[in-house]
Amino acid sequence: MRFSECHDLAIHGLCCLAAQPKGRLLAAKDMAKALGAKLSYLAKILQILAHAGLVEAKRGKAGGYGLSRPASEITLSDILGAVNGGPRIYPCPGTRRCSKSKPCAIRAAFDGADRSMTRELGRVTLSRVVADLRAGGKTGNTPWLQATLVQAGA
Amino acid sequence: MRFSECHDLAIHGLCCLAAQPKGRLLAAKDMAKALGAKLSYLAKILQILAHAGLVEAKRGKAGGYGLSRPASEITLSDILGAVNGGPRIYPCPGTRRCSKSKPCAIRAAFDGADRSMTRELGRVTLSRVVADLRAGGKTGNTPWLQATLVQAGA
Repeated sequence: MRFSECHDLAIHGLCCLAAQPKGRLLAAKDMAKALGAKLSYLAKILQILAHAGLVEAKRGKAGGYGLSRPASEITLSDILGAVNGGPRIYPCPGTRRCSKSKPCAIRAAFDGADRSMTRELGRVTLSRVVADLRAGGKTGNTPWLQATLVQAGA
Repeated sequence: MRFSECHDLAIHGLCCLAAQPKGRLLAAKDMAKALGAKLSYLAKILQILAHAGLVEAKRGKAGGYGLSRPASEITLSDILGAVNGGPRIYPCPGTRRCSKSKPCAIRAAFDGADRSMTRELGRVTLSRVVADLRAGGKTGNTPWLQATLVQAGA
């Protein structure tokens, strides 16, 4: 699995949505501002997350983004899977004529590590992360999350 | 942890060294040829691995690289740790003013996944990978490994 700004924004963005009061939508521009992200880039990520069934958008003046299912039913593994089209930590370049259908021993070892990581991240729900972020937020650890709550008037 | 060509070459390079008959050194240029890698890039990786105490170099005409400890005492986790200066799958960009000393809940969750992956890869020794590669090699799965054995005259 390769972690990039894309994964990072997807996770942080979903935390922002999960932290909103029930039923309140968040505009992409407010989210982008809070996360210090480029709006056009964040919009693409939100599109990927919508396609994966994690967020839904409502258009119009009172529109914005919200989670499409409860935060307690979304795990970190779901998020990475949505961004990657399935988690994989070892992107075998295949330049050494390894067989794609029959993974070599190196790839097999990393597939095992993948499964172990996926299991671990599959145990962590978005609701738990947000609860922990809020608890840590008292020490000023998560200004980005607070910012979306202020912007949404929560 | 970010996987790159650097990690990939480090793992494949060490497999080549582990596959050599006892005491036989492998020249960097032969390894680079077998792995389809640029010699200057591979040389830098070998330097990192030497610094981490995984390989040692002998200069001169009969020189080359060899493992500095038995392949049964080197794990995939050791290799990634050597390349990364310690494994970490979630490189928090820190652009959101998260505290470095006190990881946020997102980072903490990924640190847990890191530990799980490291544990898994720490169980896989280089000698096991090479034995598995050789078993798979009968189906033509690892031409790069065979190439280093031919070049070394093994």
